[in-house]
Amino acid sequence: MLKKKEKYIVAIAGATGAVGREMVEILEERNFPVSDLILLASEHSEGERIEFRGKSRTVHKLAKNSFNGVDIALFSAGGERSLEFAPAAVKSGAVVIDSSSAFRMDPAVPLVVPEVNPKALERHGGIIANPNCSAIAMVVALKPLHDAAKIKRIVVTTFQSVSGTGKQAMDELAGQTIALMNFKEVESKVYPHQIAFNCLPHIGSFLENGYTKEEMKIVNETRKILEDSSIGVTATAVRVPVFRGHAESINMETEEKIGANEARAILSRSPGVIVYDDPLRNIYPLPVDVSGKDEVYVGRVREDETVMNGLNLWVVSDNLRKGAALNAVQIAELLVAQE
Amino acid sequence: MLKKKEKYIVAIAGATGAVGREMVEILEERNFPVSDLILLASEHSEGERIEFRGKSRTVHKLAKNSFNGVDIALFSAGGERSLEFAPAAVKSGAVVIDSSSAFRMDPAVPLVVPEVNPKALERHGGIIANPNCSAIAMVVALKPLHDAAKIKRIVVTTFQSVSGTGKQAMDELAGQTIALMNFKEVESKVYPHQIAFNCLPHIGSFLENGYTKEEMKIVNETRKILEDSSIGVTATAVRVPVFRGHAESINMETEEKIGANEARAILSRSPGVIVYDDPLRNIYPLPVDVSGKDEVYVGRVREDETVMNGLNLWVVSDNLRKGAALNAVQIAELLVAQE
Repeated sequence: MLKKKEKYIVAIAGATGAVGREMVEILEERNFPVSDLILLASEHSEGERIEFRGKSRTVHKLAKNSFNGVDIALFSAGGERSLEFAPAAVKSGAVVIDSSSAFRMDPAVPLVVPEVNPKALERHGGIIANPNCSAIAMVVALKPLHDAAKIKRIVVTTFQSVSGTGKQAMDELAGQTIALMNFKEVESKVYPHQIAFNCLPHIGSFLENGYTKEEMKIVNETRKILEDSSIGVTATAVRVPVFRGHAESINMETEEKIGANEARAILSRSPGVIVYDDPLRNIYPLPVDVSGKDEVYVGRVREDETVMNGLNLWVVSDNLRKGAALNAVQIAELLVAQE
Repeated sequence: MLKKKEKYIVAIAGATGAVGREMVEILEERNFPVSDLILLASEHSEGERIEFRGKSRTVHKLAKNSFNGVDIALFSAGGERSLEFAPAAVKSGAVVIDSSSAFRMDPAVPLVVPEVNPKALERHGGIIANPNCSAIAMVVALKPLHDAAKIKRIVVTTFQSVSGTGKQAMDELAGQTIALMNFKEVESKVYPHQIAFNCLPHIGSFLENGYTKEEMKIVNETRKILEDSSIGVTATAVRVPVFRGHAESINMETEEKIGANEARAILSRSPGVIVYDDPLRNIYPLPVDVSGKDEVYVGRVREDETVMNGLNLWVVSDNLRKGAALNAVQIAELLVAQE
């Protein structure tokens, strides 16, 4: 549906958010063939200026008529905005790459991680969904192991940074931290409880079954991206007082035996993965170190003897880059290469 | 071995540490029958003064002859000190309650959590071991469920606060936080990496099998305290930038079916446990809220459909109190009541 061109008109809806700003940077960094970049956001941010390729550009108000002539629209403005404006963008002839959860579980919408299921892209109908940050990191690390030994079950606990919530949450963590270090009262607006020096087992709203939306996204999206609904996934998603970088403690069980050394060997030749695993030299992935990196880092690979073929892993990635903006731009790159 | 008296001479070895200071407070708070309190620490802290029952007491240097006349010696001065001085204390006629890991896995030494295995105390030979902080919280929460439905397997990921390492680590987190909020360089002395705004999957040293000592303590001590070596336990222990309070994401599998409602009902009538689980009202245990509390808090109880009889739980406790000092004093109370 995307017409082959030398350069493309790209729009970013939600350009002033934490992920939107990252998208602008990544398009420049990766030298994406952009002929014009249209920056869109809510009324509230209208008139702000963002630099792209050395030129300052004005942010315009997101509207249904914002997409005339646009080839590729990267959405990162929340689910409601996606539901309201993505169809208009498609009608205008744009291909939408949507980072919200609005369309992810729609069977007609491909949910794509380029290293994992690039072929899913072939069947899109104008909208392609960019998966949840924690699901992306997990499938990049687990797909090669799934191919090698077939994953039966995953028990995952996440350590998610506040940038996953957005810029306001980063300000809240900084503000609360400064208040506490000065023995002042803490105010919580973005989160229901203090996040500074605390851990909140609450990401997204709670569902009937006691799980949060975030936990069910990890469950459902992992199965959709790996294209295997037989995999059992159970998740506990926790917000931690970290600015950037999500970590995951993953316990998995495979059909075939896969030792820790074999798992490391497989992962070290897998696309988008860096094995960072030499604990005796204090080498394991950390949110602070992985900030700004493109790859998914895997460490603490070890066998779990409590089940037949068990493995434990510690996976860390930059939630704003691979977990959001970078994966969206990689989808655009794949689209441009394929069509 | 402890002679029945109206009041006891109690010594604290490691009195100036984070756990030692907590022990002094708890002995006072719970009105433990103390006739004299002897405060012991390394040379470095000799001469410091600590208040007990409104009276300031001098800290003396820990030595082999420190225990003359002492009835109960609470040790919290690290494994090496315990190995060096606990036998001397026993020889002097004291019963030692040791918070280090030095004697925990010794088959002749009871490893006791009063709510869980009080009977183990009957067989002591002068030394009683106080378990690892994460193991204590886990067994208090899981024992009633084990009794009801027999636990087969536990997958646990911990979120451990820096006070578990000690006072220097609390200072390091505070110092690094202040430095970062002032855009200054960070120094790491206690931990091998920055702990502020970061998560370190590294507690205790690494072993041959890729696990840390802390992870294997959780595995081995849980099985010893629950007196069931058939339970499979696999652990990932993570240090988080929290001052006080350890959290645990626990996935468990039982022989018999146990629903979330049933689990909550069982836990809410169990000793030392508070069920704090009403997520739609944002009620779940948090490290910051559980600080200073005696009980183990359990929330986020939900069924895990990926195995036959699976449950997920979020368990939080004050690592300095129930995870260390309080449990030691409770052992002393049990000892005084039993003998």
